[in-house]
Amino acid sequence: MNKIPLILDVDTGVDDAIAILYALSCPELELLGICTVAGNQTLDKTTRNTLSVLEYLGRTDVPVAMGSSGPLMRPLHTAPQVHGENGLGNVQLPEPAKKPLEEDAVSSMRRWIEQSPRPVTIAAVGPLTNIALLLKSYPHLKSKIEKIAIMGGGAFRGNASPVAEFNIYVDPEAAHMVFKAGVPMVMCGLDVTMQAYATQEDIDAFAALGNKAGRFCADIFRFYYDFHMSGVRGKLPGCAVHDAVTVMTLTHPELFKGEDAYVEVDLDGQYTLGCTAADFRDRGRIAEKNAHVIMEIDREAFIRLLLKAAASYS
Amino acid sequence: MNKIPLILDVDTGVDDAIAILYALSCPELELLGICTVAGNQTLDKTTRNTLSVLEYLGRTDVPVAMGSSGPLMRPLHTAPQVHGENGLGNVQLPEPAKKPLEEDAVSSMRRWIEQSPRPVTIAAVGPLTNIALLLKSYPHLKSKIEKIAIMGGGAFRGNASPVAEFNIYVDPEAAHMVFKAGVPMVMCGLDVTMQAYATQEDIDAFAALGNKAGRFCADIFRFYYDFHMSGVRGKLPGCAVHDAVTVMTLTHPELFKGEDAYVEVDLDGQYTLGCTAADFRDRGRIAEKNAHVIMEIDREAFIRLLLKAAASYS
Amino acid sequence: MNKIPLILDVDTGVDDAIAILYALSCPELELLGICTVAGNQTLDKTTRNTLSVLEYLGRTDVPVAMGSSGPLMRPLHTAPQVHGENGLGNVQLPEPAKKPLEEDAVSSMRRWIEQSPRPVTIAAVGPLTNIALLLKSYPHLKSKIEKIAIMGGGAFRGNASPVAEFNIYVDPEAAHMVFKAGVPMVMCGLDVTMQAYATQEDIDAFAALGNKAGRFCADIFRFYYDFHMSGVRGKLPGCAVHDAVTVMTLTHPELFKGEDAYVEVDLDGQYTLGCTAADFRDRGRIAEKNAHVIMEIDREAFIRLLLKAAASYS
Amino acid sequence: MNKIPLILDVDTGVDDAIAILYALSCPELELLGICTVAGNQTLDKTTRNTLSVLEYLGRTDVPVAMGSSGPLMRPLHTAPQVHGENGLGNVQLPEPAKKPLEEDAVSSMRRWIEQSPRPVTIAAVGPLTNIALLLKSYPHLKSKIEKIAIMGGGAFRGNASPVAEFNIYVDPEAAHMVFKAGVPMVMCGLDVTMQAYATQEDIDAFAALGNKAGRFCADIFRFYYDFHMSGVRGKLPGCAVHDAVTVMTLTHPELFKGEDAYVEVDLDGQYTLGCTAADFRDRGRIAEKNAHVIMEIDREAFIRLLLKAAASYS
Repeated sequence: MNKIPLILDVDTGVDDAIAILYALSCPELELLGICTVAGNQTLDKTTRNTLSVLEYLGRTDVPVAMGSSGPLMRPLHTAPQVHGENGLGNVQLPEPAKKPLEEDAVSSMRRWIEQSPRPVTIAAVGPLTNIALLLKSYPHLKSKIEKIAIMGGGAFRGNASPVAEFNIYVDPEAAHMVFKAGVPMVMCGLDVTMQAYATQEDIDAFAALGNKAGRFCADIFRFYYDFHMSGVRGKLPGCAVHDAVTVMTLTHPELFKGEDAYVEVDLDGQYTLGCTAADFRDRGRIAEKNAHVIMEIDREAFIRLLLKAAASYS
Repeated sequence: MNKIPLILDVDTGVDDAIAILYALSCPELELLGICTVAGNQTLDKTTRNTLSVLEYLGRTDVPVAMGSSGPLMRPLHTAPQVHGENGLGNVQLPEPAKKPLEEDAVSSMRRWIEQSPRPVTIAAVGPLTNIALLLKSYPHLKSKIEKIAIMGGGAFRGNASPVAEFNIYVDPEAAHMVFKAGVPMVMCGLDVTMQAYATQEDIDAFAALGNKAGRFCADIFRFYYDFHMSGVRGKLPGCAVHDAVTVMTLTHPELFKGEDAYVEVDLDGQYTLGCTAADFRDRGRIAEKNAHVIMEIDREAFIRLLLKAAASYS
Repeated sequence: MNKIPLILDVDTGVDDAIAILYALSCPELELLGICTVAGNQTLDKTTRNTLSVLEYLGRTDVPVAMGSSGPLMRPLHTAPQVHGENGLGNVQLPEPAKKPLEEDAVSSMRRWIEQSPRPVTIAAVGPLTNIALLLKSYPHLKSKIEKIAIMGGGAFRGNASPVAEFNIYVDPEAAHMVFKAGVPMVMCGLDVTMQAYATQEDIDAFAALGNKAGRFCADIFRFYYDFHMSGVRGKLPGCAVHDAVTVMTLTHPELFKGEDAYVEVDLDGQYTLGCTAADFRDRGRIAEKNAHVIMEIDREAFIRLLLKAAASYS
Repeated sequence: MNKIPLILDVDTGVDDAIAILYALSCPELELLGICTVAGNQTLDKTTRNTLSVLEYLGRTDVPVAMGSSGPLMRPLHTAPQVHGENGLGNVQLPEPAKKPLEEDAVSSMRRWIEQSPRPVTIAAVGPLTNIALLLKSYPHLKSKIEKIAIMGGGAFRGNASPVAEFNIYVDPEAAHMVFKAGVPMVMCGLDVTMQAYATQEDIDAFAALGNKAGRFCADIFRFYYDFHMSGVRGKLPGCAVHDAVTVMTLTHPELFKGEDAYVEVDLDGQYTLGCTAADFRDRGRIAEKNAHVIMEIDREAFIRLLLKAAASYS
């Protein structure tokens, strides 16, 4: 079987780190490179975290390109309350020895896509700033993109606001541009990612793996889990491992259920900025459906696969 | 026990008719009068329907005042596809003999409230145009309003659009004014009213009552049920009897569960106009909670009480 | 010649006071009553100022009705920096002996219009809150309104913001409702009222009249003139006597030039809220013209008529 | 004296063609290259026109890079009624022999700026799509940009709408990004460019030059002049040569007067989209001034210099 040529776009972030760990372990994926963007933390921190995680996991072979230090048109909002001041739940990894590429993220993505013999899949789990710039600057690449799977949005709920999810809220204009670009989209929003939680038991299971990767997962989950338990965003039985969901839809689509919809990103509502209004109806106030919205996950299989991924590291 | 002095504000409408029928039958309520507004249909039709229903049920003692023929600031949208061209599922009632009051709805509400020895409850189950005008024109009345219970909005879903409910969508500015007025609010939105459906079996039970009122309910449900079954707004096991929910929260609060929230009505989003963004969190981007949002209903008890109400008519 | 039956709607205010003084003196006008609204200052101050000015000028025969204490949908902005803390340039008039009507402004306007044998003209020189409520609550009155002449807006300039004039900015939704109501509108915006300035010489001429009214004008102009000279709103040769312009277009239309336009009030722009976008073109992105926009004034005649008005008081 | 290293960004267009002709003739300027963008016409036409004009004027040495085929986030509006179906007033130039660069506009601008020993000036006289992408994709270049002089906006007037100028209206988000980028901005908006008109006499003077360039100017002005005389945008004594103004502010600043302002681009107003709200005040609702707004021009000198430029071609 052919591997899926994949670009990861991340704002690492606790759940981004899990998503990277998972993606690196998947035989189904050929990771062309990782791009960083500002979101959960500032660009310097998300880039450092990405490099640190790769180094910690022994995968300095994966190229990392720095992307945008802020949204297209708005000041940057970060989420230290969720991911800690350093963005990795305040777990201290050694300073990474490797540097990011000289080349910026958009140019790197362009090169990776142009050089790939097969259409490339993009998994974008932060604000969509880099992806919007890529698609607008190099529209000829669209035909070489298999699909864009995002962690972002929510058909029926928000977290940054009652109706907006964080990644979309941070750069709604970029999200709008990506949803309108005409490239196949898979939206893993809060509808599904809030189902993809890790309980305290699950976290203990990561620790119990006994290896470096397992301990790392358990460590970075700690701060993040406490945030979720604080009830700021309602009552959950665990912490939502959002970003890994997006990657797993690529490797194990059989674990998910979704529905096509016409998704519009609200750009100008005073209270609804960044809301991803999703119209599932075939009639009514509608345009052509532009996204496959994931609505359900087999949570236990999801956790099992993450544990297996962590266990795979020596 | 003291009866609840009640003003009904309606845009009759199939489910408004059921709400009127229910309210008239409740010993817990003292119906001061009914005001009409444009919404499900134009003002002339909603007024005629209201008068016809009262006459059909033998209750011409209840005064009816005509309110606003359209939203504060927008062209009127009606819903003939849901309620039929005549607004009563195309069921033909005789032309009502009685006329509405000479006095307009806002002046009538003012008089009813001023004359009431006890604070008055308002159940508003159409667009909130009349209520907004009342509160803005006569702010001194606010202290004499016990609460305003509405059918409108939705914390997690819409019907007029993916994120907006019809009554709020039709006159979002009026809704904004009412939510901001500082009067206790109970919001019965789609979250709960979509649970308050009548199945074909339920409708058959109305018909089986054998009396005029039961047959009337079964008749007007027909068109409305078919609309719901057409799937335009998703798959439901029956037709949502929205407006009666609002009245029943007054007479049987024990059948409902809700939660306080800070509700804002979106007024300017291109895709989110009329969205009732509801913030249930105690922390975060928040202002003081301004509404009690009903989220759950005991559906079987609801239907049982509606049947009992219909049966009570000779 | 028939007098023009006139309702004045004011948020008194320095230039409102001049407008009242002028209107009271005009044989062309039959002043049915004055309504007050919040704007330049809070409602209690604008009402007190209105009553004080009437009493000072010996015209307690004119009924005053209190209107809205704030905009339809927004918090109130006042302009103490322009009109002083008391709203009359901090000139202290005696506490008025007379009270406003028991009846509210909207009900009073309704009564005045219904009782008038001829169509009534409304000169509204504050935020349009009262007028919007009147037209929405009693649409049947529209045919009995000759026209509504406002001080508000600006086709090419703003003062509250670079593109919005104060009266419209304070209650843009009310302005929108009034412009859309289908009643003939005359818009005296900043385009013309900034030409209607009083120089220091002009103010001295008021003082030199030697009578109570002349001294009063000169006194209340002092603070207001200083504000204009402070350059906050650009360089002017005097202080703009905005509100009197509106009344004078009724009595001396020959002193003005204007042009029909399609005027839309911006309600949702982050930087353009309250902008009166005026389209003078006969083709292009246009709807039916809904206002006559005054663009030019004979300033010297304007000042001369104001002086004559002041001189007419004993 | 050092020449000004210049990048021209155009959507050629009648007045763009004049601006190019002028820029090519100026000894003060070192034209590094020309980028094209969609605006007055589609990208293929504006690129073809740019190449054709260069070839016609014998200047195929100037590199041309193709930029964006549409705005960042909106459908493209073009202006065939102003510039003709072919964008050059329907004057037919021979098909250009030369092709644009393989490299896209943003990459080309990046290279030109990085290779320039001195900071580069950008004159952008179309929608600001390319410039926004450049500044967002390569923020490190900002310190190497001397300034960005645009044709766009208007402090006191619009043309695409009553309050918005065409270039800003077409891509308001791009304009917002450029105004916010922190690079020195010179805004040549309608305030000045509507003063920079060419009369029929002026056009005759171009024709009378007798050379190819003069005839070309006279020819392309014909359709454009007729549009201006049609009165669609009000009454003017000639046709506004907008884009050449921007270039001339670089070579002959002594012919212009301007003022610093804080300029915000409206992005969400229903009627004010693309309005450049310009705050010239030092106090009030203000942020740091971000643009030098040109307000006056010596029109006769402007025309004289354009004629001299045309005459300079053999």
